[in-house]
Amino acid sequence: MASTKYVYDFDEGDAGMKKLLGGKGSNLAEMTRLGLPVPPGFTITTEACNHYYREGAYPEGLEAEIDEHLERLERKMGKKLGDKNDPLLVSVRSGAAISMPGMMDTVLNLGLNDDSVRGLANQTGDERFAYDAYRRFIQMFSDIVMGVERNRFERELEKKKEERGVALDVELTAEDWKDLVEKFKDIVRKETGRDFPSDPREQLDLAIQAVFKSWGNPRAVTYRKQYDIPHDLGTAVNVQTMVFGNKGDDSATGVCFTRNPSTGEAKRFGEYLVNAQGEDVVAGIRTPKSLDELAEEMPALYGQLTQVMEKLEKHYRDMQDIEFTIEQGKLFMLQTRTGKRTAAAALKIAVDMVESGLIDKEEAVRRIQPDQLDQLLHPRLDPDERYEVIAKGLPASPGAAVGEVVFDADTAEMRGSRGEKVILVRWETTPDDIHGIIAAQGVLTSHGGMTSHAAVVARGMGKPCICGAEAVKINQAERIFEVNGLVVREGETITIDGTSGKVILGEVKLIEPKVDENLEKVLSWADEIRRLGVRTNADTPEDAQRARDFGAEGIGLCRIEHMLIGEDRLPIVRRMILAEDEEKREEALMELEPLLRRDFEEILEIMDGLPVTIRLLDPPLHEFLPNLVDLRVELERLKHVPGEREEYEEKEKLLARVRAESEANPMLGLRGCRVGCTMGGVTEMQVRAIIKAACDLKKKGKDPRVEIMIPLVAFRKELELEREKAVEVTEGVIEAMQTRLEYLVGTMIELPRAALTADQIGEVADFFSFGTNDLTQTTLGFSRDDAEAKFLPMYLENGILTDNPFQTLDVEGVGKLVRMACELGREANPAIKLGICGEHGGDPRSIRFCHQVGLNYVSCSPFRVPVARLAAAHAALGDVQDATK
Amino acid sequence: MASTKYVYDFDEGDAGMKKLLGGKGSNLAEMTRLGLPVPPGFTITTEACNHYYREGAYPEGLEAEIDEHLERLERKMGKKLGDKNDPLLVSVRSGAAISMPGMMDTVLNLGLNDDSVRGLANQTGDERFAYDAYRRFIQMFSDIVMGVERNRFERELEKKKEERGVALDVELTAEDWKDLVEKFKDIVRKETGRDFPSDPREQLDLAIQAVFKSWGNPRAVTYRKQYDIPHDLGTAVNVQTMVFGNKGDDSATGVCFTRNPSTGEAKRFGEYLVNAQGEDVVAGIRTPKSLDELAEEMPALYGQLTQVMEKLEKHYRDMQDIEFTIEQGKLFMLQTRTGKRTAAAALKIAVDMVESGLIDKEEAVRRIQPDQLDQLLHPRLDPDERYEVIAKGLPASPGAAVGEVVFDADTAEMRGSRGEKVILVRWETTPDDIHGIIAAQGVLTSHGGMTSHAAVVARGMGKPCICGAEAVKINQAERIFEVNGLVVREGETITIDGTSGKVILGEVKLIEPKVDENLEKVLSWADEIRRLGVRTNADTPEDAQRARDFGAEGIGLCRIEHMLIGEDRLPIVRRMILAEDEEKREEALMELEPLLRRDFEEILEIMDGLPVTIRLLDPPLHEFLPNLVDLRVELERLKHVPGEREEYEEKEKLLARVRAESEANPMLGLRGCRVGCTMGGVTEMQVRAIIKAACDLKKKGKDPRVEIMIPLVAFRKELELEREKAVEVTEGVIEAMQTRLEYLVGTMIELPRAALTADQIGEVADFFSFGTNDLTQTTLGFSRDDAEAKFLPMYLENGILTDNPFQTLDVEGVGKLVRMACELGREANPAIKLGICGEHGGDPRSIRFCHQVGLNYVSCSPFRVPVARLAAAHAALGDVQDATK
Repeated sequence: MASTKYVYDFDEGDAGMKKLLGGKGSNLAEMTRLGLPVPPGFTITTEACNHYYREGAYPEGLEAEIDEHLERLERKMGKKLGDKNDPLLVSVRSGAAISMPGMMDTVLNLGLNDDSVRGLANQTGDERFAYDAYRRFIQMFSDIVMGVERNRFERELEKKKEERGVALDVELTAEDWKDLVEKFKDIVRKETGRDFPSDPREQLDLAIQAVFKSWGNPRAVTYRKQYDIPHDLGTAVNVQTMVFGNKGDDSATGVCFTRNPSTGEAKRFGEYLVNAQGEDVVAGIRTPKSLDELAEEMPALYGQLTQVMEKLEKHYRDMQDIEFTIEQGKLFMLQTRTGKRTAAAALKIAVDMVESGLIDKEEAVRRIQPDQLDQLLHPRLDPDERYEVIAKGLPASPGAAVGEVVFDADTAEMRGSRGEKVILVRWETTPDDIHGIIAAQGVLTSHGGMTSHAAVVARGMGKPCICGAEAVKINQAERIFEVNGLVVREGETITIDGTSGKVILGEVKLIEPKVDENLEKVLSWADEIRRLGVRTNADTPEDAQRARDFGAEGIGLCRIEHMLIGEDRLPIVRRMILAEDEEKREEALMELEPLLRRDFEEILEIMDGLPVTIRLLDPPLHEFLPNLVDLRVELERLKHVPGEREEYEEKEKLLARVRAESEANPMLGLRGCRVGCTMGGVTEMQVRAIIKAACDLKKKGKDPRVEIMIPLVAFRKELELEREKAVEVTEGVIEAMQTRLEYLVGTMIELPRAALTADQIGEVADFFSFGTNDLTQTTLGFSRDDAEAKFLPMYLENGILTDNPFQTLDVEGVGKLVRMACELGREANPAIKLGICGEHGGDPRSIRFCHQVGLNYVSCSPFRVPVARLAAAHAALGDVQDATK
Repeated sequence: MASTKYVYDFDEGDAGMKKLLGGKGSNLAEMTRLGLPVPPGFTITTEACNHYYREGAYPEGLEAEIDEHLERLERKMGKKLGDKNDPLLVSVRSGAAISMPGMMDTVLNLGLNDDSVRGLANQTGDERFAYDAYRRFIQMFSDIVMGVERNRFERELEKKKEERGVALDVELTAEDWKDLVEKFKDIVRKETGRDFPSDPREQLDLAIQAVFKSWGNPRAVTYRKQYDIPHDLGTAVNVQTMVFGNKGDDSATGVCFTRNPSTGEAKRFGEYLVNAQGEDVVAGIRTPKSLDELAEEMPALYGQLTQVMEKLEKHYRDMQDIEFTIEQGKLFMLQTRTGKRTAAAALKIAVDMVESGLIDKEEAVRRIQPDQLDQLLHPRLDPDERYEVIAKGLPASPGAAVGEVVFDADTAEMRGSRGEKVILVRWETTPDDIHGIIAAQGVLTSHGGMTSHAAVVARGMGKPCICGAEAVKINQAERIFEVNGLVVREGETITIDGTSGKVILGEVKLIEPKVDENLEKVLSWADEIRRLGVRTNADTPEDAQRARDFGAEGIGLCRIEHMLIGEDRLPIVRRMILAEDEEKREEALMELEPLLRRDFEEILEIMDGLPVTIRLLDPPLHEFLPNLVDLRVELERLKHVPGEREEYEEKEKLLARVRAESEANPMLGLRGCRVGCTMGGVTEMQVRAIIKAACDLKKKGKDPRVEIMIPLVAFRKELELEREKAVEVTEGVIEAMQTRLEYLVGTMIELPRAALTADQIGEVADFFSFGTNDLTQTTLGFSRDDAEAKFLPMYLENGILTDNPFQTLDVEGVGKLVRMACELGREANPAIKLGICGEHGGDPRSIRFCHQVGLNYVSCSPFRVPVARLAAAHAALGDVQDATK
């Protein structure tokens, strides 16, 4: 029986074996295959690691295989591990299939002991070098394999330098190093209770196991969580012949990129240190030289290196990040991998490579991660700046902003109108604060979650916002906030980063967003590839225009409630809600109609020729009323103030009405279509305003495309009744205005029951739009505000959840309902249009799901439109890959 | 082509043709078939009615068929309709497949006109009788067919009696009636603008159409809605030769039952009037005589009648409600139908009939409607009492109670402990009121819905409760409540009926519930038939005992939170929640443990040998804390009271904690297993208390069967983590107490996601219990409190909903999830136990669904256990029927 092969010589593998040999191992094999100067060695597979991780021991046969490959390596090099005359030294490095830089462990110079160090000294004729290497090995091995604290050795080294009156390592002599080697061995003995292992074969085994184990070290686990890397990939182990960049001034070690990783400029870029080992580069003690200097100092080697770089980039068809060592005038390649880059660089490189014919458009699209674009689309903190974070909150709306602290909306408006930059800081915001939010650069609240008023409004406006920064204690009366003892007064400058939730005292330099031509090009290629339409969620002409500029193909969600909270409207809305009879209500509705009509006309005009889905009033009505608690407190206060009898009585009456409207669980209360189904005239007024606006435009020769959306439907009959009303009003207006208009009436699918009975509902809907925010809330039983403030963070920490389900669609639960609703809806009505307008519509992984279930479009906030265009293309490319598997 | 037959002579049909001929028609046919003396006639089918209803006209051929059958009838009787010598008179009566007593119309004496009335007078030799019949006909026909108000005629009749100086109708002469006939015809002419129709054939057509139309009259539509009768059944029309009970003292008309419909006693029961027509019996003007008097007055006829009664009961194998007429010494049968009866009578009749071999046990079970039992299981208002309803609220917990009004829990407790009967009247109740609820006969709140604190607690205790009686305006300070201007003071007596939601001023006599031997017998037969187990929801030893007495086979839901709200516990729970560190929390938990352990021991002992499902803490923690609004108001008050600095600061600190715990949508917040998953020690303490209690009993030789239930699971991992904790604690306790114990750990399925991923969750659950209350809330997006207070009533009214989904399971939506979860759960774990513990577990139609999807058991409140046992048997019998179809 052929047993599993766990070890591959570099000349046995290739770049296609990444999963088995890891990134580093497969690329070393590939470079070997390409005939590049790679120090020989072998790779122990990720499967061996996984076995070790599972069973706590080597798999059967691995030890023998290592022996065999080691022997072959010794034969090839003509050296033996631990040999006292001419010892083979090796490095032992981790290397997973997906790069996790710096997360796992490496041991260099392995094979040295009291005997072989003398062999190394003889062979190199450099005793100082040999003992320096030996002490480095002890130091590194003891730290990584034996768990001895690194700075125990560093202290001994410092002591020695002091004793010898020197400042630099290079000033120490061979004798000094010899002495330190002994001292280091003492430390190991004292700390671990055992001698430093002198058998090189034992050293090798211990090092290999240490690398295996490092797969599970906490920082590696955290890293994998953060970057969504599966925990069962395992790492490979690369055992490679040592070459030395520290064998004198004809030796060097360095790192280079085939293009500039910051800007994408098509110019080689790299750094090296003369007479140094790789770890010295990483340690950043000496200032490295640039590649241009190499061209001057070692022109022949520079020539070789650039040839290799060119060869590698062409071979891999991507920008490479390369490690090399020059040992006494001879070039060795130690690593190549696809280089990490900024979003801007990624775009430029992709476009350049398409233009030079190196890759095709699909490949270019595939190489840009949609989420990367986010950094280009909002102002962001300059990464070169240093700053101190004084508090953290929920990243409620992305982007960074700088401004002076103000504590109320009126001050914000007043100062904002003078052109001053302010940040509005509130416990939480209400519709009364809207003019302040508009005037501010950004919003910071100490309360509320990702769907709090501030968060929703700010996201809609594309304004940075941090919510629920609980450490920020606001004292409204004294116009200060305190955070961990620090007092910040009104007028002091702060910076907020809504992308990360960081609050910073003082001004941090920001980088402004730009959509450059590279992005335009890549997005246009993405448009050729994607099948999903991309619309936007927009409630204002500004948002609509911005989204159209970003390439939105219509509006998927235009929320009327956001048009009702202006100072000129809220009082009318309140009168409408609190009306004592039908007549008074009708009066208020009549006042609202022309205001809404104007709003709709503006938005429809901007979106001329593109569909605009307008959702009828959705939130519970009490959201438009004064706060119940505030009212009760105010009443208590008035009790103690003499002579306010009249005001008291008026407020008391108001309280009774507000109390009657208040609800235990507003999310699940009288809202959505339930308002229209139980309160006459409200639906009719909204539809009238919409259709009149559309007919106005039609008469001006425009092409308005209205889709009326009924929210929160659970029962077919609800939609039927609301649809009947809408159609009746619409036909009436069209007739009265003597024009023609095509329009659709559909519904949001945002309740599990709607999804489960989508066959019934589909019979009376022209379209479904999945409201996955509410659908997630009801399917999971998670109130978003409460969950994000209370238990979601811990759920993510302890692994109950891998993602925030409000950011990335819960495919197993919510997704099952979406899929079911798509199937049932299409069965009932094959012509039905299907879209999504929850925040998931801007999340790349969720977009992939939308593509897979066959939605017609996604809709997202204006700033996410480019992200969604790209993600939709990625989803389509995924299909191609799946189909060719 | 054979056209549809729309008319059947009585001798063409039988009792099996109910759907086509209606109840009355098919029974007339059956009696004719049995050779009983039925006046001849024919029936026009329900299909004809449906056609008329749809098209507004007779179906083709109907008119000819009527002519044909009328002719045949005339031949048979040797009389002709409208004949001036010997006229045929007929009655025209409605008769649907399902009895709708008094809902539709009837016309008697049809066929009279100015000519035929003389024929009738000649034939009978009684002019007075003939003209009396004529004026009755005009009166009835004009009212029903022509829409002339009945009391227009009554006024004329009164005038005539006054004029003639007589008091009774019988004192009027033939001449008087003749005169009145003319006056009546004048009225018709004046009111309708046309003459009273004199053509008998036209009279017949108009009467038939009037009966058809009466199917759609508002009271009939309302009746059908209330009793769930389909609107498309239609009514048949019976045209029958008139016989007269008013032809002198050898004539009579009456109604009889083959057994007593109130008590079920196996003794004939009936009433009759000598010299009267059927309408006189119904009108209740004269006091009827009893059947015993008939035996004395007309022994031969009595003998005939009792023979007919015996024959009909044997033939129909059920108690019959019979109408008869004696015309000049000759007995005629006009109607027989299954008699309506009280629940007690239904039980006694069923048991008697089984014992006499008339029906089998299955049939006996089938005949008792589960919902009927409810009236036997709670005190109820004596139906013979007269009372005035001053307000209505939600029927939150069934049963009636009488007591004096008190406005706070302390007064309730004080007066209750003195043996006084009180009703606790509150705006709404909180855990602080629990001692008052215990001491009161019942609870009335002006706020809150079916799941408000008062409702849930009262239902748990089986105490009558009305919630949300919004018309009741409480003035706590003056200790009164006002309702529509009426002032009720503390100490005044009221009666509340939690079954109907009625609030009544003063004392109403109540009927106490009893479980008699008839009920016991029927339930024991039901137990033989049913496949579903029946458990109870019980949190107290009293409830557990009551439920076991009612035949519960275990506890399906024992809620720990109800054990935490006593005066001795709430302060500890608050300390636990507000603990500043782990140590303080652990202290509070340690204090709670022995208290809970005692509770569990009692309940487990009562349920010895039967499974007890204990649900770990479920509600949001802030439900145990002081109310946020009250606290803020109190703080505002303290601001204005000098010298309360210390209290102010303390309350301010408390407020901060309460605010931190408060939630936007508590239903969807930090509750259920989320508490255990994020707050250490809480789950462990509960499990320790449960398992220690069980082990205590085990050591006493008892047989405790514990099932630990983790609530509100949405993700497999939640259950996995909580299950691990529970198992670890359990095994530890068992080992420490050196005993053995079998136990299960399972979960509630109460979130859509849990149902959708039941295959994953099923892998780590020993059982699922469907929490259909919360599952309905999340699937429909209905907060029960808010929905029932705000839009459910209107939704039921305008037909969006046909049932309250919190009472009867929404099979299409929620049921789909339940079915899916059953299938997925059984796939993952074939041994899984499936039950339901939502309130639907006590609702007969929902129980039928539970049976169909194959649950193992239902669980309901103690008082519903007999209902559920019977409903489960009905469900099983339904299966038998389905299988033999």
